[in-house]
Amino acid sequence: MASGAAHAAPEYKWKMVTTWPKNFPGLGTGANYLAKLIGEMTNGRVQVKVYGAKELVGALEIFDAVSRGTAEMGHGAAYYWKGKSIAAQFFAAVPFGLTAQEMNSWLYHGGGMELWEELYAKFGLVPGAAGSTGVQMGGWFNKEINSLDDVKGLKMRMPGLGGEVLKRAGGTPVLLPGGEIFPALQSGAIDASEWVGPYNDLAFGLYKAAKYYYYPGWHEPGTTLESFINKDAFEALPKDLQVAVRNAIRVANQDMLADFTAKNNRALEQLVTEHGVQLRKFPDDVLKKLKTLSDEVVAEEAAKDPMAQKVYDSFVKFRDQATAWHAVSEQAYMNARSLK
Amino acid sequence: MASGAAHAAPEYKWKMVTTWPKNFPGLGTGANYLAKLIGEMTNGRVQVKVYGAKELVGALEIFDAVSRGTAEMGHGAAYYWKGKSIAAQFFAAVPFGLTAQEMNSWLYHGGGMELWEELYAKFGLVPGAAGSTGVQMGGWFNKEINSLDDVKGLKMRMPGLGGEVLKRAGGTPVLLPGGEIFPALQSGAIDASEWVGPYNDLAFGLYKAAKYYYYPGWHEPGTTLESFINKDAFEALPKDLQVAVRNAIRVANQDMLADFTAKNNRALEQLVTEHGVQLRKFPDDVLKKLKTLSDEVVAEEAAKDPMAQKVYDSFVKFRDQATAWHAVSEQAYMNARSLK
Repeated sequence: MASGAAHAAPEYKWKMVTTWPKNFPGLGTGANYLAKLIGEMTNGRVQVKVYGAKELVGALEIFDAVSRGTAEMGHGAAYYWKGKSIAAQFFAAVPFGLTAQEMNSWLYHGGGMELWEELYAKFGLVPGAAGSTGVQMGGWFNKEINSLDDVKGLKMRMPGLGGEVLKRAGGTPVLLPGGEIFPALQSGAIDASEWVGPYNDLAFGLYKAAKYYYYPGWHEPGTTLESFINKDAFEALPKDLQVAVRNAIRVANQDMLADFTAKNNRALEQLVTEHGVQLRKFPDDVLKKLKTLSDEVVAEEAAKDPMAQKVYDSFVKFRDQATAWHAVSEQAYMNARSLK
Repeated sequence: MASGAAHAAPEYKWKMVTTWPKNFPGLGTGANYLAKLIGEMTNGRVQVKVYGAKELVGALEIFDAVSRGTAEMGHGAAYYWKGKSIAAQFFAAVPFGLTAQEMNSWLYHGGGMELWEELYAKFGLVPGAAGSTGVQMGGWFNKEINSLDDVKGLKMRMPGLGGEVLKRAGGTPVLLPGGEIFPALQSGAIDASEWVGPYNDLAFGLYKAAKYYYYPGWHEPGTTLESFINKDAFEALPKDLQVAVRNAIRVANQDMLADFTAKNNRALEQLVTEHGVQLRKFPDDVLKKLKTLSDEVVAEEAAKDPMAQKVYDSFVKFRDQATAWHAVSEQAYMNARSLK
């Protein structure tokens, strides 16, 4: 084929399986964008067809499906695979962990990506950071949270490590797929729920089922989305296409955060001004206690397996440095900007 | 040429002129990285040779040089071109403006990039966001700043809009290239100086010439670096190479912020623990007054020309939304994480 041909026939046809409903705002559309970008950046030589959850395999089956080669590529979030590896959770979201900017820095310039590659190589996968939601919201509640006692007995939809922390605080974490949150909250089957942020929460109409919208999302402070590629499929590509695919993932990573930031800006305004949502900050005392519990839970999880401990050590060292630096930069600046 | 050839001979040989000394940490190395990435992502078909400031043209001549085609590409920061267009400053740094995450969101999903393209098209250039330093530091001082009165009569190295704000506060902004800051500060020719952040400031040894290191850098809260390409040179590329070059710039944009974040983390630790640098936060009262002055200065600048006004309107609307959203997300989270 001549180089530079405008519409080359695809030499590689890939299937991308995802954990998201097809075209799901932000996450599913982020997967679509990545697929499109791979087509463009390989000049049409790699064509990626996106499958929503359940179209080809179930949402939580995509890791295995790509690992065994049923599909060449997947798009999800690494904390879904904690049953396979405790270490995986550090590449998605950790309570009181890294923000989006810090995650990218840890991954690209702090040794994080190398650890992720080492971990996923065991499953025959090549991982990549493929997006971020930024800091999520703390969730929707029908009563005020004035002390940690108010969490006791609370049935709250909260997955992953955040859910473990909630349990340690005396609450009951409930696992529910996104689509079931609204009816469960409205019927009182659950007392509270976190989901993502204003953009996604507005789309689900959660403000109709709960009174208070709490912040910040201490449990998911910069959730990183992932792509992974079957190692054999990746290595079958010529070098130039490997370069294109790797860089398409990096572009998609940045683009999703930019998209979420802009959409959340607008959705928050709409929630507050049009729907009269009551924003509430978790009291400092509650946040301090949640941080203590989070640090315990995360350290205990990490101690369960050597690879998780290795990732934890790198992650926590980076977090402590980033916290100190951002205390005088990002954090201090945003505090200065909002002084009244 | 066969597609997928490992080492194709370059079909396009480009010169990239930069405002940075060759290999300058973070900024010059960011330009090098972008050039390398363009080579890789075009499979060697576009080769970019990087020139440091003065190697081909002077630092502040690169805009004209690329505009007239002396070089195909440039790497700098848009506020250097305020003499050509007041509007350009909004694409680099604005006092009390957008953070790095917010800039990317405004540019990619808030209409910013379209405005930048419209502006640079008048000069025959195709712009791109090609990196960010993140929030900079407030600067090095030999006396404490306890009120805005302490700024009166202060001779401080501070370029751009920040310098205008300093002037309005009664200080004297001084323009000095980076390499002249240290001797000027040591000899007392200037009383104070801002530069970039821990990583660059450590490299210049500024801690040896000043006692206090102030934060936050209200005047440069997320400085965006830029690349620009001669429009004819860009349009002479086949479509697939245009796609590769555009996306290489996006990858470089994200990578520089990740690099600065990791390096600043480590350099701050070194400055404080090894060199005993005294960190000082500007008092809230000083920051509030600087914000009032900044908003005045920026609005007045924008009113001087219709394009600047158009960019300002888009920028300020986005900033106000982002400030509200980040007050409950990034900012609230970082505050929660650092509670003692």
